[in-house]
Order: sequence, then structure tokens, then C-alpha cells
Amino acid sequence: MENKIPYKIYLEEHEMPKAWYNVRADMKNKPAPLLNPDTLQPVTAQELEAVFCSELVQQELDDSTAFFEIPEEIRSFYKMYRPAPLVRAYCLEEKLQTPAKIYYKFEGNNTSGSHKLNSAIAQAYYAKKQGLRGVTTETGAGQWGTALSMACSYFGLDCRVFMVKVSYEQKPFRREVMRTYGASVTPSPSTETEVGRRILAEHPGTGGSLGCAISEAVEVAVNTPGYRYVLGSVLNQVLLHQSVIGLETKAALDKYGVKADIIIGCAGGGSNLGGLIAPFAGQMLRGEADYRIIAVEPASCPSLTRGRYAYDFCDTGKMCPLAKMYTLGSGFIPSANHAGGLRYHGMNSVVSQLYADGLMEATSVEQTKVFEAAEYFARVEGILPAPESSHAIRVAIDEAIKCKETGEEKTIVFGLTGTGYFDMYAYEKFHNGQMTDFIPTDKELEASLEKLPKV
Amino acid sequence: MENKIPYKIYLEEHEMPKAWYNVRADMKNKPAPLLNPDTLQPVTAQELEAVFCSELVQQELDDSTAFFEIPEEIRSFYKMYRPAPLVRAYCLEEKLQTPAKIYYKFEGNNTSGSHKLNSAIAQAYYAKKQGLRGVTTETGAGQWGTALSMACSYFGLDCRVFMVKVSYEQKPFRREVMRTYGASVTPSPSTETEVGRRILAEHPGTGGSLGCAISEAVEVAVNTPGYRYVLGSVLNQVLLHQSVIGLETKAALDKYGVKADIIIGCAGGGSNLGGLIAPFAGQMLRGEADYRIIAVEPASCPSLTRGRYAYDFCDTGKMCPLAKMYTLGSGFIPSANHAGGLRYHGMNSVVSQLYADGLMEATSVEQTKVFEAAEYFARVEGILPAPESSHAIRVAIDEAIKCKETGEEKTIVFGLTGTGYFDMYAYEKFHNGQMTDFIPTDKELEASLEKLPKV
Repeated sequence: MENKIPYKIYLEEHEMPKAWYNVRADMKNKPAPLLNPDTLQPVTAQELEAVFCSELVQQELDDSTAFFEIPEEIRSFYKMYRPAPLVRAYCLEEKLQTPAKIYYKFEGNNTSGSHKLNSAIAQAYYAKKQGLRGVTTETGAGQWGTALSMACSYFGLDCRVFMVKVSYEQKPFRREVMRTYGASVTPSPSTETEVGRRILAEHPGTGGSLGCAISEAVEVAVNTPGYRYVLGSVLNQVLLHQSVIGLETKAALDKYGVKADIIIGCAGGGSNLGGLIAPFAGQMLRGEADYRIIAVEPASCPSLTRGRYAYDFCDTGKMCPLAKMYTLGSGFIPSANHAGGLRYHGMNSVVSQLYADGLMEATSVEQTKVFEAAEYFARVEGILPAPESSHAIRVAIDEAIKCKETGEEKTIVFGLTGTGYFDMYAYEKFHNGQMTDFIPTDKELEASLEKLPKV
Repeated sequence: MENKIPYKIYLEEHEMPKAWYNVRADMKNKPAPLLNPDTLQPVTAQELEAVFCSELVQQELDDSTAFFEIPEEIRSFYKMYRPAPLVRAYCLEEKLQTPAKIYYKFEGNNTSGSHKLNSAIAQAYYAKKQGLRGVTTETGAGQWGTALSMACSYFGLDCRVFMVKVSYEQKPFRREVMRTYGASVTPSPSTETEVGRRILAEHPGTGGSLGCAISEAVEVAVNTPGYRYVLGSVLNQVLLHQSVIGLETKAALDKYGVKADIIIGCAGGGSNLGGLIAPFAGQMLRGEADYRIIAVEPASCPSLTRGRYAYDFCDTGKMCPLAKMYTLGSGFIPSANHAGGLRYHGMNSVVSQLYADGLMEATSVEQTKVFEAAEYFARVEGILPAPESSHAIRVAIDEAIKCKETGEEKTIVFGLTGTGYFDMYAYEKFHNGQMTDFIPTDKELEASLEKLPKV
């Protein structure tokens, strides 16, 4: 059996998922509801529809429907770049001399360079279906903005992206890719919004943050007729769309009779991790199987491992609903020398609840160790990984080395979310020995967590 | 039948080619032999072995063996990123409202971003097998240098890359990718070689050229024990390795009973074009089938359409053997505003001979038209194409539009050689309306061709 497994498992088109899986349906402890930031009462569909597309609001709030059919138009688009391969890392296994079997689900083989496209196309589709003119969003490193630009271009929607200023300046090429797809890209904070002007007045010269860019995008969406706001992570609807990652992974493993022991995903807002683990966590919740699931986050932005499980604002401007999540406080901004992405202050509520319930572990890694793993992986497996994805690589390698020590033939599956072509500044720093690590002190985290809203 | 064709045809691992195809074996008019630059006599294997690896010299000179078995080690590496998908461009067809069926062989889904890796890994393998310490090479846009860095890293070989200075400065990220794979990268012309110093003295402030970088790499290879020179295009051995593109393409078409009518490839040195068309040209040479084959080159570097079929130097320093090829003269350097790659002054001898014998057509396109097609394609098919590849896209679209006008349901197959992530400067110029076209005058070409060696 074993020797029949190819280097890359591609599902056939007809084996691709026809529905997204909503893990909330199988959770006994449902994620806590979103709260209206003004009333602190559970937010209603109607309230959310001022910001988000109607059908996406339904997906956001529905915690009982297990499967949502993937519309034909989205499945057609998926077929342009999916199925994504599940790769057997034969070369890595051999190099590590480990008895472990390593697999990774590679989501980087599309022009946006990451898994973000899976949700971008869904959100653009529903916006188009609702007859909207366009959407607004924020982007940090640019993966989400690129993905959304591609999706909007496909459906002929306007796309306005607020890009964290420091990334806008460091990644002019990302900006050009978005422009290739017809998006308008504004560095954030900008003078185009009230919240942007306020933040600029309070913090002149700031490089911006995701939370601030979100606020700007929401403000524009709410004030422009025919526009809504869309988001690439953190939300439950995003996890729903990203379940296509986990469903394909599971289908590919099942096809070859392989049972995973350890499943590893990097964790920023939770979109990739939540999507990758969804069907596996579902099995655990239904008592059908057991897995060790590990979330990997940056030591400089450790929401799961050092944050608090509490209600918090999702954006700096405090315009979005409050979510109960593991958070470092909505004012938390990772050290400027942090290059590895995954910078969001909080974690999706589904992932947070699964973690609180003990269905998964979390660990944090320092960025120099992450880039060490990234370079090692690039040389052995040929793929230049995104820094985000390399968090998962780091822990997968560490687990494989443990297997070598114990002689255990564990099956390790990790999510390789994207490629690092636009992260060469960070790689350059690493090559030149200029990359340092930064771990926030307890005192710094406490100061940030003190400002959590009183709910 | 028709509706069964998936968006992406992936061969199974066991369907991947086990041997490269040498189209020369089926040619009645063999390509003219390489000449020793000093004696002007056909170069011997022994002479070539001072520069190239021994087994590669055999492949270079052999014009009668039809198939060369692909060594197991190379096939293992191929499995990391191959088979490359043959994509049915359903979205492009629909957008163009053409009755034509369009397919493209996508070679960009690997970290080097292009087809160059197919030959890089072969050349690194034979260097390692021969017990060499390292190899030298040149790179222009950086695709070949990246591919070779990856290949050398895999086999633990030293890799010294001379990168055309203007690209080195414009593409620092390409340089960093090569460094990620452990290569050393030197801007050319450099002071490290005699030829580099001479060119710098004659042309202070020059941005360099491929021909000059080749001369530097050859000089270092010849003067450093345990080193040989490797080249990513132009040579017959490269076309041999690249036949994997055409073999996979043909296998995928055959699998679904599809017969191509038109086959289109971009043409610089000929590596992609020659590899893509090899098995199809072979059928034509054996009288088994007929195709329309179109080579597409930049209007600013038109070796096939406006060059002379004659013996010429392959490098500026005149250190390499002379080849009979369509050439613009070894001193020809395309206009500085040319952004689309495919800058080499000559064309591989096999491709040249096939063209001279009327087995293929050639056409040239201006770069603004190329980028127009590139952006259109990116939006419709999702993939951000390399400028080089976009030459083929341009002509494929033009042919599909002709089919719309005539109502013909032709099957068009083109080579999508790579991705454009590192070409965003050029895209930016295009977006900002700053891209211009440049076509050399007859007088300029004549002046360059006057300096052809008298053979």
C-alpha cells in the first residue's frame, strides 16, 4: 500500500468537495455569539447586513447546518486552481532520516499565492449575487488583498483595498499584482476615512496595523452605497469556506487509506488552521477518531498561548462586532521587527472554543527558528514557503525529529498555506543575520489586556 | 467526449515520460555542427569537455539517438513538481466567445517559476555524477539562475551565478531566492574575470548582457578546478531535457483523444519552444501528422523573423563554440526599454533548422501588446504570466479571435512557461502607461549582422 502513494495526490475533479463543512454543527459548546459594540447584546442578522453581504451573514451566524452547498459558479472557479495537491514529503523524510510519514497540503499554486483565494471567491460571488457594486477590505502582507482582487476581477466587482502602510511601502510588487487585477490600493492609515485621519493625528508616522485598516475598510463600506465589507480571516464564514482545504486533505488521505496522527497548522486569525482541521475536529467531536491537532503561532503574537479568552473588539476603530476569542487586546501590535505574518491580535471564535475545550494544542515559535525551517524546507522540498506557512513547517520538522528519536512511525500532516515570493525582504534579513526575535513581556501583555472591553 | 475534459489534465506519476526525446534523430537535415572558435572546424567532444560535463557533451553532439533514458534521480526530482498540468482554458474561451479549444501547458508551478528547472536538474545531476564540485552559469531575468540554484542545492553542488547587472539591480528578490538555495550571485560584468574587466573598461557603466555574462561564467568554469559551465537555453542538450514539456503535453492530449491544430511557443534561445514542439515536430518529420507550429518572439529582438541563418558566436567574449543559427549578431543588445525577456541574440540550431526547413512559422509582437494579453489572461485564467510566456498568450488569443471570425473550431495549444511574480516592475510600467515599443531599424540590424564571423 505504502509504496503506491505518489509524491503528489491530486483528487479528480469529480472528487472535489461539493459542500463546505461547518464544524460548529458538531460542537456541543458553540462559539459565543458576536456582540453589538454599542448595546453589547448579541448582534442580529439585520445589524450585520449593514456591513456584510446577506448570504454571508447567514453563514456567519448559522451554527447548526453541517453542510453548505458550494454554488456552481464557485466550483467552476475552484477548478481553475484546485484541487490543491496533498504532497508526500518523501525528500524531507529522507533528509531528516525520520520514520515519520510527512504530508503537506499545498495551497500556494495560485497567483494569490495562498489559501485566501478559497474564501475570496466565495465572498465576491455572494456580493455579486446580491447586486452590489463593490467591496472593501484590508490587507496586511497582501495575500488576502491579492486573492480578493482576483476574485472581484472574475465577477466584475469593484475592489478597494486598504493595505497596512508598512507593507504597502515594503511590498510595492504586491500592490502591482492587485492593480493587475484592477483593484485600487490605499496605504492605511489614510486621510480618506475619519478613523484613518484620527489615527494619523494620534500617531503621526505610524506604519499602520491590520486592526486600523479593517476600521477604514468598514467605514468606507458602510458609507458607500452598493458596497459591503469583506474579511479574509477571523470570521466563521471564512472558516466555512476554508473547510475545502481540510475536506480535500481528508479525501486524499482516505483515498490511500492513510490515517493522520498529528495535524499541524499555522495560526494567525485562524482561517487556514480552522479550514484544515475542520473535518478532523468534526470526527473528534462526533467521537469517530482521535488526532493530535497543533496550532502554531509566532512568539511575538501569541494569542492562543498567552492571550486571554474573552470578548474583544475585532478592529482598532471598535466599529465591528465584539467576538469572544483568545486575544492579546485590540490595541496589541507585534514588534516592528516581526517579519513572519500572523499578526492579528485575536483568534477566530471556533478555533478559540475548540482550544478552550481541549480539542487542540497550541505552541509558539520564534521567527529565526521559523526562517531556519523555511530555508531548510525550500532546499529539500523545492518550494519557497511563505513565512506564515513556515511556522507549521517548523513544528512538523520538530515532531518528525521526535519520531526519529522514539522510532515512532507517526503520520504528520501540515498545511503549507502559501509561497514566499513577496517575502524576500524578510528572507534577506535572515540571510544577512539581521533577523532578531522578540517576545513580548508579561507586563506588556497585561497592559494590553487591561484595556479589554468590560462585557 | 468533449465535456469530459477537466480544467486541468494531470498525468499520473506512472504516465510521466521515462525518456527524453531527441528530435534531431528524426531530422533529415541535421542541425549544422558547432565549430571550434579558433580553428573553425567542427568541435570535438574532448574540446567541449573542458567547458561542459562529459555526459552532457554526448547529449549535445548526438543527433541520431531518438530517446535518452531519464535517470531515476532526475525522475524523482521531477516528481516533486511534475507532471505540469495541461490546462483547458475554458474561462478564456468563454470570455473570447471563440469556438476554438484552447489548452496551455503550465510550467510555472515550481519555485523557480518556469520550465528552466527541467534542464537545471538534469545538468546538476550529470555534474554531480562526474564528481564535480560546482558549476557556473549566467542568468538574465533570473529564472534560469533560480532553477539552477534549486537543482544544485538538491545535489549539494556549488553554484556560481553571473547575473546581468541591470537585472541584478532591478530584481533584488530574485537574487535572494537564489541565496535561499545557497548560490553565490555576482552582477555582470564584474571585475572577477578578465572578460568582465575588459568589457567594463570598454563600456563603463554598462548594464551588461546575457552574452557577456555567459563569457564570464565560462571563464570561471574553465579556470576553476572541479567546475564546469552550464547553460539554460540555446544548447541542444537543453532542448533534449525540455522535451519533457512536449512529451507530457502530447500524452495528456492523447489521453483525451484531442488532436492539436496549432502549437504556439514563445522563443528566446529556444529552450521552451524546442521542448514543447519536439514530439509534434517529430511526428511531422516522420510524416505521421501535421500541425501549424508558431514561434513568437519580441519585435525588439527578432532573431527568427529578421535575423540571418548563419554561423555566429554564442557569447560576447567569443569563447564558446560557434553555432549555425538564426542570429542578430552576437553584439546585438535589445533596447533598454525592452521588458519582456527573450533577449538572446540567436536561436537554438535545431529550432533554426526546423524553421529553415519550413516546419514552423515565426512571428514577432510588440511588448505593449504582450502586456495587454498578459493582463487579460491574468484576469480571466487567474494566473499571472511571465512576460516571456505572454508572447505565446498574445498569439494564442489572436488565433482564437480569428477562429471566432471564421467559425473554425481549431484546437490551440500553447506553452505557458512561467509566472511573472518577479516582473512587477514591468507590469507597473505598463499600468502607468509608461511602456513603449521599440523595433530595431533595418540599418541597425544590418550593422550588427555585418560583424558576423566569416565562416
